[in-house]
Amino acid sequence: MSADLAPDRADVDGRAVTTLRLLAADMVEAAGSGHPGLPMGAAPMAWVLWSRHLRHDPSRPDWPDRDRFVLSAGHGSALLYALLHLFGYSLPLDELRRFRQLGSATPGHPESVHTAGVETTTGPLGQGLANAVGLALAERMQQARLGAAVDHHTYALVGDGCLMEGISHEAASLAGQLRLGRLVVLYDDNDITIDGPAGQSCRDDVAGRFAAYGWHTVRVPDGNDLDAIDAALVAAKADARPSLIIVRTVIGFGAPGVEGTAAAHGSPLGPATLAATRERFGWPETAFHVPADVAAHAAELAAAGTERRRQWEAAFAGRQDRAPALDHAAALHGIATGPMATRQASARVLAAAGAALPELVGGSADLAGSTGTDALPGGVVTADDYSGSTIHFGIREHAMAAVLNGLALHGGFRPFGSTFLVFSDYLRPALRLSALMGLPVVYVFTHDSVAVGEDGPTHQPVEHVESLRLIPNLAVLRPADAAETVAAWHVALTRTTGPTALILSRQSLPDLGACPVGFVGESGARVVGAAVDEPQVTILATGSEVALACSAAGELSAAAVPTRVVSVPWRERFAALAPADRAGIVGTADVVVAVEAGATGGWAALTGGPERVLGLDRFGASGPGERVLEHLGLTAAALVELARRSLLTREAMPLHA
Amino acid sequence: MSADLAPDRADVDGRAVTTLRLLAADMVEAAGSGHPGLPMGAAPMAWVLWSRHLRHDPSRPDWPDRDRFVLSAGHGSALLYALLHLFGYSLPLDELRRFRQLGSATPGHPESVHTAGVETTTGPLGQGLANAVGLALAERMQQARLGAAVDHHTYALVGDGCLMEGISHEAASLAGQLRLGRLVVLYDDNDITIDGPAGQSCRDDVAGRFAAYGWHTVRVPDGNDLDAIDAALVAAKADARPSLIIVRTVIGFGAPGVEGTAAAHGSPLGPATLAATRERFGWPETAFHVPADVAAHAAELAAAGTERRRQWEAAFAGRQDRAPALDHAAALHGIATGPMATRQASARVLAAAGAALPELVGGSADLAGSTGTDALPGGVVTADDYSGSTIHFGIREHAMAAVLNGLALHGGFRPFGSTFLVFSDYLRPALRLSALMGLPVVYVFTHDSVAVGEDGPTHQPVEHVESLRLIPNLAVLRPADAAETVAAWHVALTRTTGPTALILSRQSLPDLGACPVGFVGESGARVVGAAVDEPQVTILATGSEVALACSAAGELSAAAVPTRVVSVPWRERFAALAPADRAGIVGTADVVVAVEAGATGGWAALTGGPERVLGLDRFGASGPGERVLEHLGLTAAALVELARRSLLTREAMPLHA
Repeated sequence: MSADLAPDRADVDGRAVTTLRLLAADMVEAAGSGHPGLPMGAAPMAWVLWSRHLRHDPSRPDWPDRDRFVLSAGHGSALLYALLHLFGYSLPLDELRRFRQLGSATPGHPESVHTAGVETTTGPLGQGLANAVGLALAERMQQARLGAAVDHHTYALVGDGCLMEGISHEAASLAGQLRLGRLVVLYDDNDITIDGPAGQSCRDDVAGRFAAYGWHTVRVPDGNDLDAIDAALVAAKADARPSLIIVRTVIGFGAPGVEGTAAAHGSPLGPATLAATRERFGWPETAFHVPADVAAHAAELAAAGTERRRQWEAAFAGRQDRAPALDHAAALHGIATGPMATRQASARVLAAAGAALPELVGGSADLAGSTGTDALPGGVVTADDYSGSTIHFGIREHAMAAVLNGLALHGGFRPFGSTFLVFSDYLRPALRLSALMGLPVVYVFTHDSVAVGEDGPTHQPVEHVESLRLIPNLAVLRPADAAETVAAWHVALTRTTGPTALILSRQSLPDLGACPVGFVGESGARVVGAAVDEPQVTILATGSEVALACSAAGELSAAAVPTRVVSVPWRERFAALAPADRAGIVGTADVVVAVEAGATGGWAALTGGPERVLGLDRFGASGPGERVLEHLGLTAAALVELARRSLLTREAMPLHA
Repeated sequence: MSADLAPDRADVDGRAVTTLRLLAADMVEAAGSGHPGLPMGAAPMAWVLWSRHLRHDPSRPDWPDRDRFVLSAGHGSALLYALLHLFGYSLPLDELRRFRQLGSATPGHPESVHTAGVETTTGPLGQGLANAVGLALAERMQQARLGAAVDHHTYALVGDGCLMEGISHEAASLAGQLRLGRLVVLYDDNDITIDGPAGQSCRDDVAGRFAAYGWHTVRVPDGNDLDAIDAALVAAKADARPSLIIVRTVIGFGAPGVEGTAAAHGSPLGPATLAATRERFGWPETAFHVPADVAAHAAELAAAGTERRRQWEAAFAGRQDRAPALDHAAALHGIATGPMATRQASARVLAAAGAALPELVGGSADLAGSTGTDALPGGVVTADDYSGSTIHFGIREHAMAAVLNGLALHGGFRPFGSTFLVFSDYLRPALRLSALMGLPVVYVFTHDSVAVGEDGPTHQPVEHVESLRLIPNLAVLRPADAAETVAAWHVALTRTTGPTALILSRQSLPDLGACPVGFVGESGARVVGAAVDEPQVTILATGSEVALACSAAGELSAAAVPTRVVSVPWRERFAALAPADRAGIVGTADVVVAVEAGATGGWAALTGGPERVLGLDRFGASGPGERVLEHLGLTAAALVELARRSLLTREAMPLHA
């Protein structure tokens, strides 16, 4: 095969693009798995962006005013790693050789926690695009607060998969609504999906679709035409609207017999095809080849980035200094007491904390009043004025969560979002990424049980609290009254290593008495109600069921069965206590039972068996909340009966005998 | 206030519209909660559709060739109930009076299982629209199979919320791709969301957006103009593309001081406003008033529908007779044995069952090869030929699941869909509705653990199996080898009361020996490996961990600790067995331990404590699968160690002591 694609010796851009293509193909080949198709097709647009537009300093990946680059099509990770290496980020060639190996800085999909220069963890399709909307929004919001010290762009590279996912609709619509002109999205339009030609599953007019969202769109008919890509980027940055650049590419470009087909997407090229590809590009046979002129050019560009960052520091030294750290406990002390719905208590926290903590920004997926997030002070963020604190996310739960991730990734904000608990399902993929990335996003989930009542089973969460508890690194807090809600918010506001879900009631709950603001984070539980020194029964409960437990305990104690009630707003924290500490809270009870208006499975570990849990493993029903609870057996009487039965059978054989 | 909106005495259409409006307002008022805004605004379009276009027979809501009407904006349920009552469905006025009461046929949101004439359960926004796409697709697919006996339309009524949700993008794009010309969507464009004017969160050009999907769009500038609505419906039905009719309405139309504002959305009007509304419409003071002429007219229309249904029956008697019921067990017997990935075994089932069972239709969200669903015979469904069995859903997991619901609701099909297990999160809201509606949809979830390997934590499910088990009425099956996969498919194909999730491995698994095809549905578990009559230890395991359990058991038995292995493909069925039956499988072991490469919490109930479970409560890592499993401690050695430790500590105090 003739070297028909070999770049000219003097064409350092062309040689850089080839370097990216073949580094990526080499990485996948070395790993024995991975995705060469996107890197080989999209290398030219990536190179033009990084070499002519991206404002960054590889020696300082945490420079606050850097441009952000998001590889939303995360399976193309080899392209990103090749770029990071070429530009001198802390990613030596040896790490490229360890692509997809355990413990390497080059995991299969980009992970922000593992690799300097990776802005966000991507792979689940569409998430990166929505993160980019959050990053671009954060830039505008911070600019409105800090002025000229904030002046950067957000770029994203997306594929067909990202744009077919529903989250792309929500995110792009929101970006248009908020006129995020500094967001530039490159669409790798290669007309191929995993199953074959993209046209077999999608024939959207993508430009028309994005125009309908208020975006500026540009086409680049030849994805190898560097100057056309450059011109499109110039036009995109000049336009006041968010921009979509539709770049027609060939997947796996340059790989003979494979390019332009689905076969290029997700497998190594294989030694023969890889060798033929090298030959076609006039490239040496050595794997991981980086020509000296390309390396030198990239190093020059990186040095220019460093210089730009230094100039910025000189100009804006100190402008981003934070106010002294807030004493959250003091700020939250006594904010909400008395009987009220925990969603109302949460609203009081937002009103107070929002004033003390301007970084606290967020909003709701069109349920601001119902979830209490309309209490946040500071005004609404709009396309004309980004100085507010409240974001109207619209009926877009999924994009909301991914945008919150973007706000948190950007820095400068502690973002929260709200919807009904049952609709946490709509945003679960993005919430999982909050947890995986360790982002301190706060999720406010209200209307937390079948007590929602009349709206019926479509609006009544049953399995949701338990299913959220299963997500690693997500703190799931279900406070029982106003004071516990304040304590739960204290965890949410001080946690730095992961997201928090606040599970709040629609209905009013009684005041169970004062509690230290820090107790939720410390032990996850507290004794409530009448002091019972030597309980025969201890009832573990959360949220609205704590009051029910107190009623049952009163009845039992009156009938000579001394019963203690423990409110457990953070069950996972409580379960992780040292046995002695847990015993100090639970007391000397003969039996421990638990009550929660939801799936029972997760409580067996704390009660010694599923038969000691009162909960709900079926869907709810439409009717007034109190009637529904009664209908489903979630009553104090049922709990008394459970406690009595558990006492009687406490010597019974374990389940498996 | 003057009766400025009072319909003319002779205008039965106008009086019918007013009847719908005020019945809905009365229902909400009587319930003390609910949503009057949509019914009052959208009553005209609903009336024109039902009185002039909808082909249905209220006396036979199960007529297979009826037109389908989906109220995607399910919060407007009062409108649907008013329509059903007026047209003589089995929904007396007393049920309207019991709106949102426990046990009524008029729950807060429409539920297909409770109310004749309600085609699908709606409320979670956007789902109904995607169900309608499934219903319209089913019509075309069945028409291609049965001919002229199938000839109906699918109508949906959607609001701003439905169209802002991401699922609307996926579903509408798919409908355009498949050119579902018999789908007609009425968009109640009232410019109001719960939080206020829709423009504060969304300013999409909806017509432009749907045109980009290949839809025909029409505008009706005045939502009270019955003839304009009629003309738009005529145009929609004549067009070969799916149609969106954008009807500009006033939310809460007719309610003084409230109409046109967010206040009309979700609360009763209150007695004063309701009285003023009545007066404005020149309506009697009695609640639930149905004028005799309106009732008579609706009855006439219903009778015409009955006549049309009779003609259809005369013309097509017997055309929809099913073939004799398939003996699934015989059809599946021995289809897959030997070592292979369970996803491959599943592909063999699809190849065989697809041939024997033409109702089996479905596909993948762009992972047909990886999930093995490309093995289904029968060809691909396209816009030009609907006679195939395979649907290319595209990278649209959420719409896929909701479309599967639509296919199941339509009748005539047993639909399945596939993706990677980790992406079950993307479709969870629709899967929950499969379970709530009791639809026998089959979900094929492959790549089922961290053994996925190199793709890393974004692609490695950890919490997913357990979180699916929490959804009521969803059968979650994780077979351990090829034969168990066939047995799991047997459950999936014979279950009629709810969905099934098949949890399948990417990697090859050993053959554990033959098993009866029916065992999964009967006991959920079986003893595998070496016969151990009097085990000291019994290991419960699922999927790929059963082989690991067998290794550990071999080691333990060799070291004089007789150990039995129980494969538990359907844990919930096994846990629900009578204790004696469960004991018959578990044996006389001193300790029971469990292993599953995922969240551990749900196993404590079967082992007697969380400390007897080997699993994974953290995110995975990128690397070769075997290395990842080792790194995370999912090894036979760790299981041996756990069993030994459990034996030593079996007398230890329960957790809470």
